[in-house]
Amino acid sequence: MTCLLVPAVACAARAPAGHKTTGHGHQQPKIGVTRGVRSKVSAARAGMDGGAPPAIAPDAVINLELGDPTMYEAFWREVGERAAVAIPGWSGMSYFSNAQSLCWFLDPEFEREVRRVHRLVGNAAVDDGYHLVVGTGATQLFQAAMYALSPAGAQRPVGVVSPAPYYSSYPPQTDLLLSGFYRWAGDANAFDGDAHIELVCSPNNPDGAIREAVLSSESSKAIHDLVYYWPQYTPITGAAAHDIMLFTMSKVTGHAGARLGWALVKDRDVAKKMVYFVDRSTIGVSKDSQVRAAKILAVVSDAYGPGEDDTRLRLFDFARRRMGERWRVLRASVAATGAFSLPEETAGYCNFTKQTVAAYPAFAWLRCEKAGVEECAEFLRGHSIVARGGEQFGGDARCVRVNMLDRDSVFDVLIQRLSSIT
Amino acid sequence: MTCLLVPAVACAARAPAGHKTTGHGHQQPKIGVTRGVRSKVSAARAGMDGGAPPAIAPDAVINLELGDPTMYEAFWREVGERAAVAIPGWSGMSYFSNAQSLCWFLDPEFEREVRRVHRLVGNAAVDDGYHLVVGTGATQLFQAAMYALSPAGAQRPVGVVSPAPYYSSYPPQTDLLLSGFYRWAGDANAFDGDAHIELVCSPNNPDGAIREAVLSSESSKAIHDLVYYWPQYTPITGAAAHDIMLFTMSKVTGHAGARLGWALVKDRDVAKKMVYFVDRSTIGVSKDSQVRAAKILAVVSDAYGPGEDDTRLRLFDFARRRMGERWRVLRASVAATGAFSLPEETAGYCNFTKQTVAAYPAFAWLRCEKAGVEECAEFLRGHSIVARGGEQFGGDARCVRVNMLDRDSVFDVLIQRLSSIT
Repeated sequence: MTCLLVPAVACAARAPAGHKTTGHGHQQPKIGVTRGVRSKVSAARAGMDGGAPPAIAPDAVINLELGDPTMYEAFWREVGERAAVAIPGWSGMSYFSNAQSLCWFLDPEFEREVRRVHRLVGNAAVDDGYHLVVGTGATQLFQAAMYALSPAGAQRPVGVVSPAPYYSSYPPQTDLLLSGFYRWAGDANAFDGDAHIELVCSPNNPDGAIREAVLSSESSKAIHDLVYYWPQYTPITGAAAHDIMLFTMSKVTGHAGARLGWALVKDRDVAKKMVYFVDRSTIGVSKDSQVRAAKILAVVSDAYGPGEDDTRLRLFDFARRRMGERWRVLRASVAATGAFSLPEETAGYCNFTKQTVAAYPAFAWLRCEKAGVEECAEFLRGHSIVARGGEQFGGDARCVRVNMLDRDSVFDVLIQRLSSIT
Repeated sequence: MTCLLVPAVACAARAPAGHKTTGHGHQQPKIGVTRGVRSKVSAARAGMDGGAPPAIAPDAVINLELGDPTMYEAFWREVGERAAVAIPGWSGMSYFSNAQSLCWFLDPEFEREVRRVHRLVGNAAVDDGYHLVVGTGATQLFQAAMYALSPAGAQRPVGVVSPAPYYSSYPPQTDLLLSGFYRWAGDANAFDGDAHIELVCSPNNPDGAIREAVLSSESSKAIHDLVYYWPQYTPITGAAAHDIMLFTMSKVTGHAGARLGWALVKDRDVAKKMVYFVDRSTIGVSKDSQVRAAKILAVVSDAYGPGEDDTRLRLFDFARRRMGERWRVLRASVAATGAFSLPEETAGYCNFTKQTVAAYPAFAWLRCEKAGVEECAEFLRGHSIVARGGEQFGGDARCVRVNMLDRDSVFDVLIQRLSSIT
């Protein structure tokens, strides 16, 4: 499976998402984990990308540190041929996708399908003049947005904040190049400066909380990271209409390998600056991924259209059902052991499903309640479970973030192992 | 056609590739050009991406400012089906492509085909332990390389230099975020500092010159931008074996829309830092583009393999023939008018074609010789030709850079118009 052994090795090449704000951040993570994991790898690429996942050995390390969304693979296999694309050799030669558009590297078909799926779900305002900017994942757009919102000609970098626990990649992404425009300034609740940019992630990574900006001043700006604001994860309570809203294929359809995100941007000048950033940093965004994503999103929307009654094609139904099952099993297991706790379940009326539903976050924010355990991540590693420690989110080291989107076989092993801890 | 009217409008959203080293660079370019161009656009997307190019109106502005490689479309149409890929809906869900690899987001098939085409052409050392790092275009890898080469813990940013005329995008890409690690420091020949990073583009953009690093010191580092070191543009005189070498699909096969480049990197730690940069800035690179590029490159190499005698499938033959024709026509036209000059033709023995051949650069570095003309770009604009002014390359404003890789119909109009200037 994807996140079992192999990606754990990959993680070795990734620096820990620490909170360094100066210096290069490309140190290696703790060697012990890596070596331990690497030594158990047998079939390097097996199951990496669509092949049958290998069986999980009883002593294998399962890596749930990242948010790899391979749970969705089963859905797309079921959908089959109608989600496939064929791309001829002569297509996509030009840098341009639509030179008439403010975002000249945005494929018009992809744009159409993005707006269509938002209208279907009702999670974001896409009309009323919102500009769409495509990026190499929401990650690139987050940086484009900081660039666009930084005051020109400022004496020093503007502070970038988010309330703890915040997404652990925010600090190292923000400070990757030690920009003269912006700089990570930590927990928004501890911030006492004036001008700043606040990152508002809702539902929040890592803990699933529904959030609004906590700071506000004349000179404050917000970037809304709404990548988990889809009906499989949370009740859709209305169409968000913030200044800058980020989304990604990775979390709505599970196509993380496409590296494709989009921003809905209210202000034309801000959108133009974001386009400029993406132009300068990568001269646009893969057309191939956009062409493919347009097809994938069309299949998603078509399944809820008139005349389509094959319910197996309904992505949100599939994912919501799967998430519901997983959260029920996880909560039961946690309740049974007494060794852990989870944030309380929340619920609300969902405008998309037309019923009151529980939230099923993409990550479990698991707290170890055992006496003597100060670092939950370290404790779980002793049980061959890799999860990301709470301190990396500016939070409690007794917490860890656990991916809820991996394949069934991995999730099952997670539950077995958690259940065995008393 | 791609670079006729429509991309000119797109260029309006792109800031001019000026040499600003401080402040945000996202100003709008000169409005007159944009408006003039926009007003003549009728069919927005016609011919943008594989459709039949629209006829070029007698008063239409032709935009040869960028290096859009749409010349290659004719080749890939001729190749037809065998260069097409089909991607199923369930493929590419994971962030990982090969977690065992140092570059965990590098598709193994793409890696194999990249190494294979370099071995076929003989333009770069790919064995001897070179690491391959994939990026969202050579543009992202150029930034990754600067990041990787910047000294850790330095008091101030290291200077980044290149001898003028240098690629006009180097300065604004370098200073996009005003990094604390590195900063654009201009013409390498005018540089008198110590530690620095030199960008060595060979064949050089904009003038096609063959270059070696001009600076050297104990603390100097070089990034070799070899994106034009392919047999259609220049004699292949040997396998380059520099510390960091950058290549891109855009210039070898013409697939600019894929946003796919690669770096061959000698030092493992440097490669790891580059991987870290790409991870943090975009969490990897589109799998869809890599899958497609693997196929495209396989078709290129197969065509020169044993048992294949369909010469229509030989990319380098096609492109070299086409470039040779264009350069002969351009030189004849320039010689006839007397209003312009071009760098002298150079030639050398090519190890790939096994003959002495002329260089046919991807851009023409055209100098206006008419008395009273100080700015060639402005002068050509008066003749409905958009080209990039020499001052943007740190060079002479009497020069312009003209794209030689656009479609035949556009190139023909260029020649007609240049020929009419006396």
